[in-house]
Amino acid sequence: MFVILVYDVGVKRVNKVLKKCRAYLHWVQNSVLEGDITESNYIKLKAELSKIINTKEDSVVIYTFRLPRYNSRETLGIKKGGEENIF
Amino acid sequence: MFVILVYDVGVKRVNKVLKKCRAYLHWVQNSVLEGDITESNYIKLKAELSKIINTKEDSVVIYTFRLPRYNSRETLGIKKGGEENIF
Repeated sequence: MFVILVYDVGVKRVNKVLKKCRAYLHWVQNSVLEGDITESNYIKLKAELSKIINTKEDSVVIYTFRLPRYNSRETLGIKKGGEENIF
Repeated sequence: MFVILVYDVGVKRVNKVLKKCRAYLHWVQNSVLEGDITESNYIKLKAELSKIINTKEDSVVIYTFRLPRYNSRETLGIKKGGEENIF
């Protein structure tokens, strides 16, 4: 399935969260990632993120799509992220 | 069409950008909004945002979908946004 993930977490946890997300998804913008992911990896990612974040302060929103992907992605201003997938 | 918008802009412009976006979309999380929007309002929103942001520093990513909407939206941690649409 296709996933768009947006995180809003405390400064101390940003690096850990981004690193974990990049293991599964492509980085789009500072706090946004996207990508195709298997159901089992999706469950794994959520479990791993839940261990990192402070559930009283942080927020991670995940949109999932069966198909198709989005029709377009437009960026106004600068492009802050990349397309590469470290995994 | 259905839109997911994520902004990452300088502190000085956050309020203006959020206010403008909320005129057209629902606020989901700190920097994320979503909602159904007409093609003409979509063009209007982009034009208005382009006037507010500093295109050398700020970034706004907009995903558009013809249909259907996403299959699920999950939130880990706290829910920072609302569902209300001020417009």
